[in-house]
Amino acid sequence: MSVSPSGDSPRILLCNDDGIHAPGIRSLATALDGVGELFVVAPTTEQSAVGHAITVRDPVRAHSIEFEVPSGPVPAWGVTGTPADSVKLACHQLLDAPPDLVVSGINQGPNTAVNVLYSGTVSAATEASILGLDAIAVSLCDWSAPQFEAAGRWARRIATWALGHGLPPGVLLNVNVPARPHEEIEGVALTRQARSRWEEGFDRRTDPADRPYYWLAGTFVNLDNGQKTDLSAIERGYVSVTPIQHDMTAYDAFDSLADGDWDVSFQDDATPEA
Amino acid sequence: MSVSPSGDSPRILLCNDDGIHAPGIRSLATALDGVGELFVVAPTTEQSAVGHAITVRDPVRAHSIEFEVPSGPVPAWGVTGTPADSVKLACHQLLDAPPDLVVSGINQGPNTAVNVLYSGTVSAATEASILGLDAIAVSLCDWSAPQFEAAGRWARRIATWALGHGLPPGVLLNVNVPARPHEEIEGVALTRQARSRWEEGFDRRTDPADRPYYWLAGTFVNLDNGQKTDLSAIERGYVSVTPIQHDMTAYDAFDSLADGDWDVSFQDDATPEA
Repeated sequence: MSVSPSGDSPRILLCNDDGIHAPGIRSLATALDGVGELFVVAPTTEQSAVGHAITVRDPVRAHSIEFEVPSGPVPAWGVTGTPADSVKLACHQLLDAPPDLVVSGINQGPNTAVNVLYSGTVSAATEASILGLDAIAVSLCDWSAPQFEAAGRWARRIATWALGHGLPPGVLLNVNVPARPHEEIEGVALTRQARSRWEEGFDRRTDPADRPYYWLAGTFVNLDNGQKTDLSAIERGYVSVTPIQHDMTAYDAFDSLADGDWDVSFQDDATPEA
Repeated sequence: MSVSPSGDSPRILLCNDDGIHAPGIRSLATALDGVGELFVVAPTTEQSAVGHAITVRDPVRAHSIEFEVPSGPVPAWGVTGTPADSVKLACHQLLDAPPDLVVSGINQGPNTAVNVLYSGTVSAATEASILGLDAIAVSLCDWSAPQFEAAGRWARRIATWALGHGLPPGVLLNVNVPARPHEEIEGVALTRQARSRWEEGFDRRTDPADRPYYWLAGTFVNLDNGQKTDLSAIERGYVSVTPIQHDMTAYDAFDSLADGDWDVSFQDDATPEA
């Protein structure tokens, strides 16, 4: 068992976006059994593709849920909200003290490339990072009949590493595990998000009253032939670990935008108005 | 009127997250009247704080809406989905050809600092950027009784600039306008997102059956004393323009993470498996 700086067992909060009853979060908890003191706070129902949505116009509720790992029961709550709501409510209301680490997953399906922005799994970890906590999102690149054993072993290894080393401020780890048996995984790679997009893709249908409706449908396209992307790592059988930050400022764009056409008279040290 | 490279009037798609009936998008359309050919595709109902949510498990519908600017009627559709859904549906189904520019707003309330991640207004522009389009999000830093005139004038100025110059690939502009009359705005500043967080903050109540529920409540805290942030610009009366990118990779974290504890045997140029 890892040991937190205080000498106590580290506190690990688990979340996901597939819902607290999904097999992925059960596998994650089993995989982390013994690494620390576990807590589970996750949406009651599936919340895939909610991105970083939070609930601001309605109240949320939390219900105690039975949740077992091999060593015994784990305190667990289902939340009638989004993954980001769940992390907020856990840290501010349900847990007695903040966790040392938040692990979100194991998602059923990859969260690579542009899909990071749509992912509720990643947003739970991002929310934790905003709150100043170390956080990891774990996804298994398999939509159908997933076997979580390898992803669980990597989640345990990376979580243990993060507890021991800590993460850079404002940075979380987005982990994607290829869909293959543990012994066939080639290793682990630090990667960047591949440039990509969905080529959509709405399926237009009409209802029985002849009114149109649209199903989102599309084909994922990798636009990135560069090196060390999350997609290329997965394709080659490596676990992909992408450091993610929640500061979305495009610092590299400053020079090209500040080309003299702007009326940039702003001086940050100017005397504030009375 | 600006002219697109083809010589035709530029096509401008408007979206928002306050809903197609909100006053902010009406003010935006009026402000952009004459800059190009306008189209409006926005959520039917308010979608604040939905972040980058998309609708993948349900179909969406689009309803034609009456929408007037001083020069005449504008094609407009209300969408039963999120801001990102609206941009996708507009570009792939409702419009005959992709727009030259997407402008999202005018949001009622600021979208600065960490709030960029929660904002549906910004996510509409981010979605457009993912689709390869130039995009601008515009927010007015006033929650109550907003006067959109100054924000509209700045939206027109910045949209015209963007149509003439184009934006760097993968970069959108997040514009926040201070809540003051146009003649009292000091200028425009290129800024970065301020480091910040919400110190929450749930209000625990009990329903008539004595069951608890929680309202999200919190205080916004600026953690950033540095220069040229969106918050400092607004505070000093400047329009804040932050270039935003949807690649969230934390490139600066690579060195600190690749410290030898990882088993990084990954070689991007390794021979792919058979």
